[in-house]
Amino acid sequence: MDRSVYSNVGKKEDTTGIAKRVAQISVSAIKQMPVLASKIEGCISLGQGIPSFGTPSFIRESIVAALKHDEFIGKYSLQPGIPELKLEIAKYLHRTNGINVDPERELFVSCGAMEALAGVISTVVDRGDEVLIPSPNYSSHIEQILFAEGNPVFVPLIEEEGWRLDVAGFRKALTPKTKAILLCNPVNPTGAVFREEDLRAMAEMALERNLFIISDEAYDFLLYDGLPHFSLASIPELKTLLITCKSFSKMYCMTGWRVGYMLTAARIVDQVLKVHDAFAICAPTISQYAALAALKATNGKDGDGDRFIRQLVEALSSRRDIICDRLDGLPHLFSFQRPKGAYYVFPKITHDNENDMDLALRLLHEARVITIPGSGFGPTGAGHIRLSFGAPEKDIHRAFDRIDEWAHLST
Amino acid sequence: MDRSVYSNVGKKEDTTGIAKRVAQISVSAIKQMPVLASKIEGCISLGQGIPSFGTPSFIRESIVAALKHDEFIGKYSLQPGIPELKLEIAKYLHRTNGINVDPERELFVSCGAMEALAGVISTVVDRGDEVLIPSPNYSSHIEQILFAEGNPVFVPLIEEEGWRLDVAGFRKALTPKTKAILLCNPVNPTGAVFREEDLRAMAEMALERNLFIISDEAYDFLLYDGLPHFSLASIPELKTLLITCKSFSKMYCMTGWRVGYMLTAARIVDQVLKVHDAFAICAPTISQYAALAALKATNGKDGDGDRFIRQLVEALSSRRDIICDRLDGLPHLFSFQRPKGAYYVFPKITHDNENDMDLALRLLHEARVITIPGSGFGPTGAGHIRLSFGAPEKDIHRAFDRIDEWAHLST
Repeated sequence: MDRSVYSNVGKKEDTTGIAKRVAQISVSAIKQMPVLASKIEGCISLGQGIPSFGTPSFIRESIVAALKHDEFIGKYSLQPGIPELKLEIAKYLHRTNGINVDPERELFVSCGAMEALAGVISTVVDRGDEVLIPSPNYSSHIEQILFAEGNPVFVPLIEEEGWRLDVAGFRKALTPKTKAILLCNPVNPTGAVFREEDLRAMAEMALERNLFIISDEAYDFLLYDGLPHFSLASIPELKTLLITCKSFSKMYCMTGWRVGYMLTAARIVDQVLKVHDAFAICAPTISQYAALAALKATNGKDGDGDRFIRQLVEALSSRRDIICDRLDGLPHLFSFQRPKGAYYVFPKITHDNENDMDLALRLLHEARVITIPGSGFGPTGAGHIRLSFGAPEKDIHRAFDRIDEWAHLST
Repeated sequence: MDRSVYSNVGKKEDTTGIAKRVAQISVSAIKQMPVLASKIEGCISLGQGIPSFGTPSFIRESIVAALKHDEFIGKYSLQPGIPELKLEIAKYLHRTNGINVDPERELFVSCGAMEALAGVISTVVDRGDEVLIPSPNYSSHIEQILFAEGNPVFVPLIEEEGWRLDVAGFRKALTPKTKAILLCNPVNPTGAVFREEDLRAMAEMALERNLFIISDEAYDFLLYDGLPHFSLASIPELKTLLITCKSFSKMYCMTGWRVGYMLTAARIVDQVLKVHDAFAICAPTISQYAALAALKATNGKDGDGDRFIRQLVEALSSRRDIICDRLDGLPHLFSFQRPKGAYYVFPKITHDNENDMDLALRLLHEARVITIPGSGFGPTGAGHIRLSFGAPEKDIHRAFDRIDEWAHLST
């Protein structure tokens, strides 16, 4: 893989005295494009995956009340999280996916799913271990594996089958050094949703070979056309090998609160908590209160939470339709697989085999539209760009109006 | 060092398949004692370092207002932090310590000082590097060095001179593998404040040998008897080697908000931001707003911030007097150095050369007082316990009444 594509754009690094684990990694292109864009007036972003909606008022109001009266809201929580929140998480998992976890021992609350993912990857990946990872895949996972001095082994997804998991490809990639499989489902950056049959085949392989599966399910609530979400955590035999990381960020438009959680076997929780202790101490208490309010309104009878999630999925489903329609209008530039989940689409650049970094930079400078070059998501991402449809419908239209005009002038 | 003393108390770990960096570390005794204590009714805590005060109302009120009207409060901030907060931090550093930093390039906002510390230690410490560290020292730093697969090299502090830095001892400990020096000042767990002359000598040594100095200054505002705080960051020549981590947690009673910052040379900020990106994405936005409100009230004219800090220092100074008086009444159990900063005292166990872990467990089970065994803070910590005087005066008295009674009955 050409790492320069997603290393600091145009910036020479001085890594004298810097540890190898960090010298070799990069801030992802996802975060770098907005920094480049901040120097250009009036860009429209189809870049970073932030939904345009604010945190819902039923969550904010509960925090306003707590800030007035609760003496604990400013203090450290217990290191693995507030016990009441852990209970509600267990209830939620059981209610929505039939998953049984012991809230005291088999889960902990993290500073977003990212801290849990970085923590568990540092915990199970030793120097030189191989981690199988689909390509394309969320770029931060690649950095997290490299940070642990592991080797990411990329297994291409089958693009023409809607970015399907290539189970046979994973089998072929196994070596004695394979330690874990990392999956993100629904998938950032492709909007794919893996099929239950393929996930079950991956689970079997993990059980046969005693491999950890690390599963990032930040978008588990966000599937379109009534497609059900299949969580690996609903396979009881996998419990000792599976680590599932989930988030409140996307489901309740709480990206900035930094709160998520991990569920896995108690002995792995114990190990990851050491990393959590060294990096975070505890998830922000106020954000844990917010997560608790969110889940109570979802698990409880009043239904604010479920109603909010349903409206969010409907709004994003309609944005998906718009972005797909607009992409349909640009067949000379892109071909694409229709997303089934998350809020990303990952079109292939059909125009002149243009390099994805070049195209992203041209779209930025010439059309003032922020997109993310695909190479940052693994080798199979080359020749693609990631578009987020978290933006309001009007912005999606305006961005595509600009791209249309730009394409008309320059191609 | 006998690591078993501060490894999971009484718990056998199963580390099959766990990476060495994590298998070898432990959740600190500081976090474990409260867990043990949670099984015992009615304990009084002189354990974890949480001041009894809540986050002040001028901070809470600004967040209540923002939650009502601000559409950005629930969203990711820029990865290095909110620009306005970084400006206020730079202003604060200049005003209080005469430190000049470029807020755009030479600092970033972290999930508490802990995330910054773990991040920078992972960034500059490679496998096998030696890090010189005073003993006793805050236990999490030892874990952070071990997590980076570095070797902590303990240099005993001079207890009878108020836990003074032994500069000659540090010189003797230098080897070709020495990569960095880690200092926490004012010191957790001893309450010592290092002398300016000793810190300057350490700085000279770092410059001579091209060593990084990582400086944890979470208690920089909390010195007693009018003692001034000397920050290494006020030595301009040290800029390329010094990484200073500071926190809002203690100064504004915001431990649960998880917000702090790091200042250092731009090229090191760039590297640590990669780790920040992989572990945290950004510090919680709502907590950054709280930190901004805190600093504005401190840098500005209305003086709420300064007034709060002054009252906090006065209250803790009076608690220090109480705990010292009570310790004076137990000369057959303890001798101690009077703390000059932070809210810890680290008495030596004079009674029967009792092991610190045994004494902490006896105090917990027999007197129902939570203390932290000293061995967790490095080898020189053995034979000591750490007492926090963050608790209210009444609780300090009640805890010592129990210890007095226990001592009377059992010694």
